[in-house]
Amino acid sequence: IAKEVAKLLDLKAQLGGDESKHKFVLKTPKGTRDYSPKQMAIRERVFDTIIACFKRHGAEVIDTPVFELKETLTGKYGEDSKLIYDLKDQGGELLSLRYDLTVPFARYLAMNKITNIKRYHIAKVYRRDNPAMTRGRYREFYQCDFDIAGQFDPMIPDAECLKIVHEILSDLQLGDFLVKVNDRRILDGMFAVCGVPDSKFRTICSSVDKLDKMPWEEVRSEMVGEKGLSPEAADHIGEYVQLHGGLDLVEQLLQDPKLSQNKLAKEGLGDLKLLFEYLTLFGIAGEISFDLSLARGLDYYTGVIFEAVLLQPENNHVEEPVGVGSVAGGGRYDGLVGMFDPKGRKVPCVGVSIGIERIFSILEQRVEASQEKIRTTETQVLVASAQKKLLEERLKLVSELWDAGIKAEVLYKKNPKLLNQLQYCEDTGIPLVAIVGEQELKDGVVKLRDVATREEVNIRRESLVEEIRMRTSQP
Amino acid sequence: IAKEVAKLLDLKAQLGGDESKHKFVLKTPKGTRDYSPKQMAIRERVFDTIIACFKRHGAEVIDTPVFELKETLTGKYGEDSKLIYDLKDQGGELLSLRYDLTVPFARYLAMNKITNIKRYHIAKVYRRDNPAMTRGRYREFYQCDFDIAGQFDPMIPDAECLKIVHEILSDLQLGDFLVKVNDRRILDGMFAVCGVPDSKFRTICSSVDKLDKMPWEEVRSEMVGEKGLSPEAADHIGEYVQLHGGLDLVEQLLQDPKLSQNKLAKEGLGDLKLLFEYLTLFGIAGEISFDLSLARGLDYYTGVIFEAVLLQPENNHVEEPVGVGSVAGGGRYDGLVGMFDPKGRKVPCVGVSIGIERIFSILEQRVEASQEKIRTTETQVLVASAQKKLLEERLKLVSELWDAGIKAEVLYKKNPKLLNQLQYCEDTGIPLVAIVGEQELKDGVVKLRDVATREEVNIRRESLVEEIRMRTSQP
Repeated sequence: IAKEVAKLLDLKAQLGGDESKHKFVLKTPKGTRDYSPKQMAIRERVFDTIIACFKRHGAEVIDTPVFELKETLTGKYGEDSKLIYDLKDQGGELLSLRYDLTVPFARYLAMNKITNIKRYHIAKVYRRDNPAMTRGRYREFYQCDFDIAGQFDPMIPDAECLKIVHEILSDLQLGDFLVKVNDRRILDGMFAVCGVPDSKFRTICSSVDKLDKMPWEEVRSEMVGEKGLSPEAADHIGEYVQLHGGLDLVEQLLQDPKLSQNKLAKEGLGDLKLLFEYLTLFGIAGEISFDLSLARGLDYYTGVIFEAVLLQPENNHVEEPVGVGSVAGGGRYDGLVGMFDPKGRKVPCVGVSIGIERIFSILEQRVEASQEKIRTTETQVLVASAQKKLLEERLKLVSELWDAGIKAEVLYKKNPKLLNQLQYCEDTGIPLVAIVGEQELKDGVVKLRDVATREEVNIRRESLVEEIRMRTSQP
Repeated sequence: IAKEVAKLLDLKAQLGGDESKHKFVLKTPKGTRDYSPKQMAIRERVFDTIIACFKRHGAEVIDTPVFELKETLTGKYGEDSKLIYDLKDQGGELLSLRYDLTVPFARYLAMNKITNIKRYHIAKVYRRDNPAMTRGRYREFYQCDFDIAGQFDPMIPDAECLKIVHEILSDLQLGDFLVKVNDRRILDGMFAVCGVPDSKFRTICSSVDKLDKMPWEEVRSEMVGEKGLSPEAADHIGEYVQLHGGLDLVEQLLQDPKLSQNKLAKEGLGDLKLLFEYLTLFGIAGEISFDLSLARGLDYYTGVIFEAVLLQPENNHVEEPVGVGSVAGGGRYDGLVGMFDPKGRKVPCVGVSIGIERIFSILEQRVEASQEKIRTTETQVLVASAQKKLLEERLKLVSELWDAGIKAEVLYKKNPKLLNQLQYCEDTGIPLVAIVGEQELKDGVVKLRDVATREEVNIRRESLVEEIRMRTSQP
C-alpha cells in the first residue's frame, strides 16, 4: 500500500507541476517592479547624491524592520490608515508593513529612550494605494528620510531640513523646483477663525490637502457635502488658501485682524518669520513659498510643514507654474514620540522625506532620451586567449588578478573565439583585454589590448597588475 | 445632535489615546531588530567588503520587490514552505514575503527572458523560524547573493562561486573556515544504491541536512521512525555520510563498486573532479572539503551544493574542528527558471548566498570586546562661536561650508557654550572646530582648532575650505 500511495503522490506532484506551469502568472505584485541593472545604476547615482548630502549635514544612519506590530502604526495616519498592508495572522503577533519611516523612527526613539539624534534612513515603505507607475507612484517605494530629534532653539533644525531639500534637488539637476511651506498651527488657527468646529479640524485639513490634485470647487463641495461644513466657513477657507508669498505674506497675516487674534496662528506665523530669516542666511529664501493651501495628509504634524514640487519646463511662459508632483515633503511632529513613551515624554522632531521614485522616473526617461550608455559593471579587464586549450591559463591569470584586487572577468567557455571575447568587452564597456597565448606564456608576458584604440602591447606578467591599475585609474 | 456626537467622538478619542498609552507594547516584532548607528557602521563595513568582491568578479546588480505573488513561492522550498510569511488578503492578489533571493531571481529571469547574466542582490528575506538572536538567527535577515545564469562549460561558474566565498571570508578576517561541497546527484545516487525508494529521496535528503545540528543517531531514528525508511538503508546511508576529504575521496568513490554503477552519482563525481581541478588553479582546493553529509535543505538544487562554516578558534587542538554555524551556502539549480517559463525553457544557474547576520554578530562582539571607538558620522568640522549672539554668523559660515561640499555641523542653540561645543566634537569624533568671534569677523578670519592637539590658528575666510579639505583628506 505504501508503495502505491507513494506512486500516486508522485503522479500528483507531476500533474501539479504541469498544471502550475500552464496557469502561472509571471509578474510582480500590483504596484511593484523589479530594478534591472541599468535602472539600478541610475538608482545608485541618486542614492549617492542624497546620502552625500545627509552625511554633509552630519547625520548618522539607522535601520528598522520592514514590519512593525500592527498597533505601532494604529492611529498615526488618519484617513490614510486604510492603505496599510497587514500580514496574515499565522499565529503570534499581528504585524503590518511600515507605511513610512517616521513612525518607526519615533518608536525607535521611545523604545531606546533617545532624546537627541540626527539620523537618516533609506528604505522601502508600503502603501495599498492606486498605483500610477508611469508617474512614479508605486505600492512599494523608497523613502529617504532625514530627521532631527531633540529640544533645540526654534526653527534652526527646521531651516536645515529645508536647506537639505534645496541641496538635494539642486545636486540632482532636475530643473526648477519650488518648496512650499506652511504651519499646522496656522492652518488650525485659520480653521478656527473661519468657524470650523474643533472636531472637524483634521478631516477639513485632509480636504485642503487635496488642493494639489483637485480644483477648489471640488474640494469645497467635499467640505460642504460630505463633511457637513457650513458654506460660509468653506468660502472663508477658500479665500485664505489661495494666498501664497514670502516673508511679506507672513508679515501681512501677522496684521490680519482675525488671524492675529488667534493664539495658535500667531505662534505659527512668528516661527515662520524666524524660519525665513534663517533661510535668508542660507541663501535660499527666494525659492521657498509660504503657501496656505499646503496641508500634508498625515495626522502627526504639529508645526512647520513643507513640500517640494518640480516645475515643468514647458510651462516656463505661463504665469502659474504647474507642478509635476511632490518629490519631497516633511515637517515638525513634536507629539509622535510621546505617543510611544509609557510616560508620554515628548521628543520634538522635524524631518524631511525625499520621494525618489518620481525622481527615478524622470532620470530614467532622460537617460532613455539621451541614449547615454550606462555601464552596469566596473570590470577593468577581460582575461582572454587567442588559441584553444588555454582555459587553465586564463583561470590562473584571472585568479591572480582577483587576488590583487583587479576587477576581472573570463568567459565561461573552454575555447571561446577571440572575436567573441572582444565583442563582450564592446558590449559591456570593459576597457582592457589581457590576452594569453602559447608565445606569451613562453616569453613570460601578457598581451594587453586597449579595446577603444585596439592598440596591443606586451607587458611582463609581474608588471601587469600595476599597468592595469594605472590605465584604469580615474583621472 | 451633530454637536453632541462630535463631543462624544472627541471624548472617545481622548480616552482611546490614554488607554493605548498604557497598554502599549514597545518592541520590534519577534525575531527582528533595529540597527543603531554603531551597528550600521559595522554593517556597512561588511557590505562594502562583500560588494567589492562581487564587483571584482564583474557582477551587475538587480533588485526585486519584498513580496511576491504567493504562487511564485509555492512548491520551491519543500518542508521549509511552512516558514513563509503571507500577507493578509485585503482584496486583490495573494502575496507572500520573499523567503530567499533565489526564487525571485529565477522569476525575474523567466519574466524578462534573460538567459545570461551574472548579478548580485543584497536584500532582506523573511522566515517564520524559531529565532536565536544571540547566534545571529533572525526572522528578518539580509542575504547577499551572487549568481551566474547561462549555458556554459561545466564547473567554471561553480568554481568561481567557491572562489568568491573564499575571498569574502578571507577579506572579512573572521578566522579559519571550511567550505564543504557535495552534489545532489551524488546524494541521489547514494540514496538509490542504499535502497531508498525514489519517492523518499527529498524527505531523506532533508533528514541528512540536519546532520550539522543533530548527531547521526537522532537523524537515523527520524529516517526510520518518522519517515519509514528500512534500518538497513539507513545504516548504509550512515556509512557514506561520514566520509569527507578532497580530490582523493572523489577518486575513491569513482572506484566504489556500487556508486560507480549509478549514472547520476557518476556524473556528479565526474563534475566534482573537474571542480577540484579548477579550485587548484584558484589556489583554494586545500580549504574545500568534499563532504557526503552536506545536503542543503532547499528543494531546487540539482547539482553541486556547498556551505561555508567558521571554525571555532578554541577547538584548534581538537582533532575535529567544530563549526559555529553556516555563514554562506549555495549550489546549482538548473531547473528553477524552467518552473517559471511558460514553455519550461531551462536556464542553468549556480549561485552563492552570504548569510551576514552571523558575521555581524561576530564582528559586533569583537568591536564590543576591543572597545574600538567607531565613528558614526563623517563630519569634518563643527562651526562654533565663543561669544553670544553669533548664531547668524555660525549659520552663514556653515552654509558656505555645505555649499563647498564640506561635511559640517552647528549646534542648534542660540548661545551654546564653547565648552559644550568642544565636548560635542570629543564625543562624536569631529576633528576640527571653526570658531567665529567678533574679532575674527572684523579680521576676515576664522579660528581653526584641531580637537586632538588643541592647536588653534587663524585662517583667512577665503582659504578655510581648502585648509579643512587638506587637513581631513585621507592619507
